[in-house]
This record gives sequence, C-alpha cells and structure tokens, in this order.
Amino acid sequence: MTVEYIAELRERVRQQRPLIHHITNFVVMNDTANVTLHIGALPVMAHAREEVAEMVASASALVLNPGTLTRDWVESMRIAGKRANELGIPVVLDPVGAGATRLRTETNLHLLEEVRISVVRGNSGEIGALTGMGGLVKGVEAIVEVDDPVEVAKALARRYRTTVAITGRRDIVTDGMRVFGVDNGHPMLKTITGTGCSASTMVAAFLSVDRDHVLASVASLVCFGLAAELAAAEARGPGSFKVALYDAIYNLSADQIRAGARVVEL
Amino acid sequence: MTVEYIAELRERVRQQRPLIHHITNFVVMNDTANVTLHIGALPVMAHAREEVAEMVASASALVLNPGTLTRDWVESMRIAGKRANELGIPVVLDPVGAGATRLRTETNLHLLEEVRISVVRGNSGEIGALTGMGGLVKGVEAIVEVDDPVEVAKALARRYRTTVAITGRRDIVTDGMRVFGVDNGHPMLKTITGTGCSASTMVAAFLSVDRDHVLASVASLVCFGLAAELAAAEARGPGSFKVALYDAIYNLSADQIRAGARVVEL
Amino acid sequence: MTVEYIAELRERVRQQRPLIHHITNFVVMNDTANVTLHIGALPVMAHAREEVAEMVASASALVLNPGTLTRDWVESMRIAGKRANELGIPVVLDPVGAGATRLRTETNLHLLEEVRISVVRGNSGEIGALTGMGGLVKGVEAIVEVDDPVEVAKALARRYRTTVAITGRRDIVTDGMRVFGVDNGHPMLKTITGTGCSASTMVAAFLSVDRDHVLASVASLVCFGLAAELAAAEARGPGSFKVALYDAIYNLSADQIRAGARVVEL
Repeated sequence: MTVEYIAELRERVRQQRPLIHHITNFVVMNDTANVTLHIGALPVMAHAREEVAEMVASASALVLNPGTLTRDWVESMRIAGKRANELGIPVVLDPVGAGATRLRTETNLHLLEEVRISVVRGNSGEIGALTGMGGLVKGVEAIVEVDDPVEVAKALARRYRTTVAITGRRDIVTDGMRVFGVDNGHPMLKTITGTGCSASTMVAAFLSVDRDHVLASVASLVCFGLAAELAAAEARGPGSFKVALYDAIYNLSADQIRAGARVVEL
Repeated sequence: MTVEYIAELRERVRQQRPLIHHITNFVVMNDTANVTLHIGALPVMAHAREEVAEMVASASALVLNPGTLTRDWVESMRIAGKRANELGIPVVLDPVGAGATRLRTETNLHLLEEVRISVVRGNSGEIGALTGMGGLVKGVEAIVEVDDPVEVAKALARRYRTTVAITGRRDIVTDGMRVFGVDNGHPMLKTITGTGCSASTMVAAFLSVDRDHVLASVASLVCFGLAAELAAAEARGPGSFKVALYDAIYNLSADQIRAGARVVEL
Repeated sequence: MTVEYIAELRERVRQQRPLIHHITNFVVMNDTANVTLHIGALPVMAHAREEVAEMVASASALVLNPGTLTRDWVESMRIAGKRANELGIPVVLDPVGAGATRLRTETNLHLLEEVRISVVRGNSGEIGALTGMGGLVKGVEAIVEVDDPVEVAKALARRYRTTVAITGRRDIVTDGMRVFGVDNGHPMLKTITGTGCSASTMVAAFLSVDRDHVLASVASLVCFGLAAELAAAEARGPGSFKVALYDAIYNLSADQIRAGARVVEL
C-alpha cells in the first residue's frame, strides 16, 4: 500500500465521476450528497421501491444506511442491494445505531445475510453489536469501545466474507486476513453529525474506481481523515470545522496525501 | 435564578453527555443533531414505531417536533411520549406551524392531551393558536404576535400543567406561576431556518440535567440567545451567521454567560 | 427587460415576504428553506395529504420537487397543485432526475398533465427527457446536454402552455415565444448539492410578486447566478462557497444587480 496509490485513487474519482446511489438516513442526506460531489463523484438519493433497481443499475456504487430506518426503506435497500449484487456493483453498509435497539441490530444483520456487502463501515460499538463481541452504543454513538477492534473487525469480515472498516481513533480495515490501520483523523469529527456516514460515502466513491475493497477503503479513510486534520487546523468550532472539512475534501491534493497519509499494515 | 446557575447547567450538559431522542421534522434534523452535539449532548433521530419505545428508554430527554408531520410519525410520537412518561424522561413539544392548518393545531393539542409534556417551546403565534388566544401563523412564522405573551403562556401552562416557553424578542418562560423573561437573542435568528427547533433542542438538553423545568428552560434560552448575539457580531449574512452560531454554542463559556446573560423574573 | 425591473422584483420579495409552500425532496429541504428566507420570503415544508390543500391556500407560490419521490408524496403534490390552480397561485415544477428512471420521467409528465404548471425549472438533460428530444441524465445530473436547449425549452413550453427555464452555462427562459438567456452563474454551483432546487425556489419567490412568469423567472435566475459569482470570488472550496452564496443572496442589492446582470433576449 503506497501513498502514490492513494493519491491515484483520489484522482481517479475526480476523473471518472462515478455515480453513488444512496439509500440513506434523513439526517445526513444533504451532507453525504455534498461529500460525494466534493470528492469528485455524483450523488443520487432515491428510495422508492419502484425505481431503486433501475437507479442502481446506472450507479458505480451503492450505499445502504439505515440510520432513520422504517420497514419500507429497508425493503428498498434489499431490492437495490440484490440488484447491485447481480450487476457486480459494490455495496457499502453503514449500520448506524446497531446495538442501540433490536430493530437496528436485526435489520443490519438481515441486510448482511441477504445482500453481499462489499464493505461494512461503522464505529466500534456498532461493529461490536453485529458480532456480539461487546461495545456499547447509545443512540448512534459508541460509548463503550470493543476491547480488541482488530479481532472484532476480522470476526465480522470472516462471518460475512466482507471487508470491515471500524472508524475511530485508529481506523481498522480488514477482510479477515489483511489488516490495515489508518491514523489520520481528528477529534473534531465527533463534534458534528454525519461524519461516519460521510466516511461511508467516501468508501463507496473509492470502491467505485478500484475493485480491491480493502485498499480502496484504506485510501478513502486516509483522505477523509487527512481532510479533517487540515480542516481542524483552521476551525474555530464545529461550524467552521464543517465548512473547512468540505473545502479540504474538495481541494485534497496528491501533495497533501504524500505529506500526511498515515497507514500501517498490522 | 443566578448567572452561576446557568453556567453550571451548561457545564453539566458537557460533562454528562445526555442522549436526546428526537422525533422531528425533515427540514431541521441535521441542524438539531448538530446543535445537540455542539452543546455537548448526544443526538439520536429515530421514528420507526417498532423502535421508538426502546430508543427513548436510553435517552435523557425526548423532543417531539411535528414540523413535517404525517399520521405515522405522530403515532410514533405518541408511543415514544407515553413511554418517556412512564420512565420519567422529560419531553419537549415544539408545535411547529400550529395555527397554520387544522391538522397542525389538532395534532399538537392531541399530543398535549395524551402525553405529559414537560415544556412546550413555540413562537407567539403557535402558542396563541394552542390557547385560542390570538396571534396568527403563516406557514411556520408568527406574523401576528399575541397581545400579551405572558398571559397566553400562563394560560397554556395551567391548562396542561406544563411549562411554556414562548421565544421572540423577549422569551417568556412560565409554569403558570413563576414567570421569567430572557432578553438574549438576535434578529439574525429569523434569517435562517430551524432556529426555533434548535432552541427546543437546547431546552431538552438542559432539562436532561436539571429537573426544574422552568429554570432549565430559562438557562437554555439564555445560552442559545447569547450564542446568537456572539455570532451576529461577526456574521456577514445568514450563511456566516449559522456557522458562527454553531461555533458559539460549542465554545460558550461560563465567562461569556456571566458577562452576557439577561434574565428577569416578571 | 431592464435591470431596474430585476432590482425592483428582488426588493418586492423583501417587502412582501410571500409564503412559499414546498413539497420537496429530503436532500434539499433545509437548503431551500434557507434560500427562501435569505431572499426575503417565508418557507413552509408540508406534505401530509390532510393539510396540503389548506396550507397552499395561504401561500403565494407552490414548489413541487419530486427529487426523492414516493407515491404518497406525489399524490400530495397533485392535491396541492390542483388547489393552487383553483386559487390562481403559481406553481413551479422541478423535475429532479427526469430521464434517470422511468418513475421520475413519468411522474413529472403526469404532474405536467394534471396540474397547470407556471414554470418548469430543470437542467438540460431533465427538460430533454420530458420532451423526448435528447440529453442524458445520470442520477440527477445532465451528463449529456441537449443539442439545442432553446428549441427543447420551447417545445416543452408549447406542449404544456407553460414557461420553461433550463439552467446551465447559459440559462434559457421561454414561454414558447419570448426567449431570454441569462449568463450569470458560476461553475462552483455544480460542486454543491441542491443549487438547482434552490434556483427553483428563487423562481417561486419571484413569481409570487409578479405575474409575468417569463420575466419573473429571468429576474430570479439573474439574482441567483449573480449571488453565485459574488460568492465564488471569495470561496476557498464548496464549503465556504455555500456559506458565501447564502450571504450573497441575502445581501444582494440593487447596485450589485445593476453592475452584474447579464441578460439577453434571443
């Protein structure tokens, strides 16, 4: 995993402008549509069961984010996910609030069983809840981290033959064999809503230009974390941090990636 | 009501990080989730009838805001509200657009009848519509104020044994006996959407750390209004005002509260 | 079409504070509510079938934007649109993603057939899809422009006896006879979500203070494009561009309009 590779993927997104179909929650739709555009991709938010199969067919990646779930939305996620599988389109699952209620935990497990998920991106508590290996989620926040995020991530990855990305102080990405740690990021990310969801959107954008799910996920999390670091350096609080984060994602250059990427293979 | 008390409550929110469960409107979900985080609390937005009773059980306060209401959402509000009542969790009602349509007026009155509401926070027209004592609401804006907001607020407070906060040039908070006026705030608050809803979120955050509904409401409105004053001092328009408002809520310090709080007991 | 006329309409919106009822998509609700306020009008978002007919009756314009459509929302659009027609209230249709799926194309055509639309505001691909005259839409973006936007706009305007505004590098506004081109605008508008939807909101605000649909649309697009130019001059990326755009819409003065308006009759 070289830094040049990360810079190249970031540039590919800008060049190819992949369409990212989101079926996502009401809180972050505007944010994740913006992040999609800022990284250089095109967003579409569509959830009607009559159109999701058709819409996803023109997309390069699909994001399923049941953060404000109801039954009809989850049904649309299933339809879109299965169609994406048929067409070989990568699917990212963001299990928002798994562990906080039975509905959330079960919905995400059902999606993992019924749809072949390329990458699950969640916080440590959410991934812990999906594996039954600890962590505690209050609302949508991991208030108790799992003891060993690498083992938890590996366990989920192996169980569902998927790639798992746990974001936190150190992001962990694994397909059950290879394991990477990403040390980019900043505590200010926790002061605004939707940054986990935005990270999932970044993963989807990078998956759409590279079929190695592990490396694409790592690259996207480096870029997102690095943008956060650059933004925090000039922010006066969470309002100005969000503005600066969006500017930084948009402007993120190969030179900045070379200077700031912090990845280790574990 | 001392200024030190307000500063202490603001700090308690930061320390305790209470979870605020919102069942709220689509327009402001992102804003109120952010305001919740900026004041130091944790937000969750969840509206599925299958999970609201479970979700609210882990929350420290519940916000019901039927600003883009439909029947299924209101039903979820009822379920969550009743469960919150059973558990002794405070409930804030934001009657967005009461008076603008029959559906909105009746829905809010039904919620007041079926759920024990801790605090109703609305503008003068909305609270007037709920009491039948005048005011005029166009869309979600009070375009005609009630003649005597103190009497209107007292009337609603007594009828439903609740605390009422009318926000406006001077905010009024009363439980039907004690009456406070808060003179913090700024006209720029009317140039962006969702500031009333954000004020309700602030009330909920403060209720979750203090069981005196009147004082907690007063303290929260002082903090919100003061943040608006600080933000307006550096804003060039509503876009930069919103950014500065979020920074100010996050950074709001005991010293700023001591220097700027403007509360009177009426 | 004089520049003074544009400046006068902009000022009329500020003075009259018309209520703009939106039935719109989840992604942009917050943005378009803000743009409505910044230009000087009042927003309300309401979609319950039980209240839309009552709500629209107190509005000065209605925006129908099926950008995240489902059947129940479209049914509410029909009810509100028909009631607006009965009351002589202007209706703007924003056919988000027409051409991307059959559901979107057909829904927008049905709305055009069942509701008398005052202005259709879309990008070149969307309007092309509604006429069957070319263009290609991926998600909600026109990735292939129509060959001759003036002819396409005229065709749709004539077929439905409406006014059509195609926004793009040069905005085209026509009722099938008169044709205007607006050269205000900036490429940064494509780096944030919801700017098309915001343009539609601006059109609605101006329609509500002038019954000449063509001139009101032209004036609104001049103001929106000009605000974008002013914002881009100080933006460092899409985050700060959005903030500056909102400040510029709010502050937009007669002098700025006189200095910057770029309209031609074609």
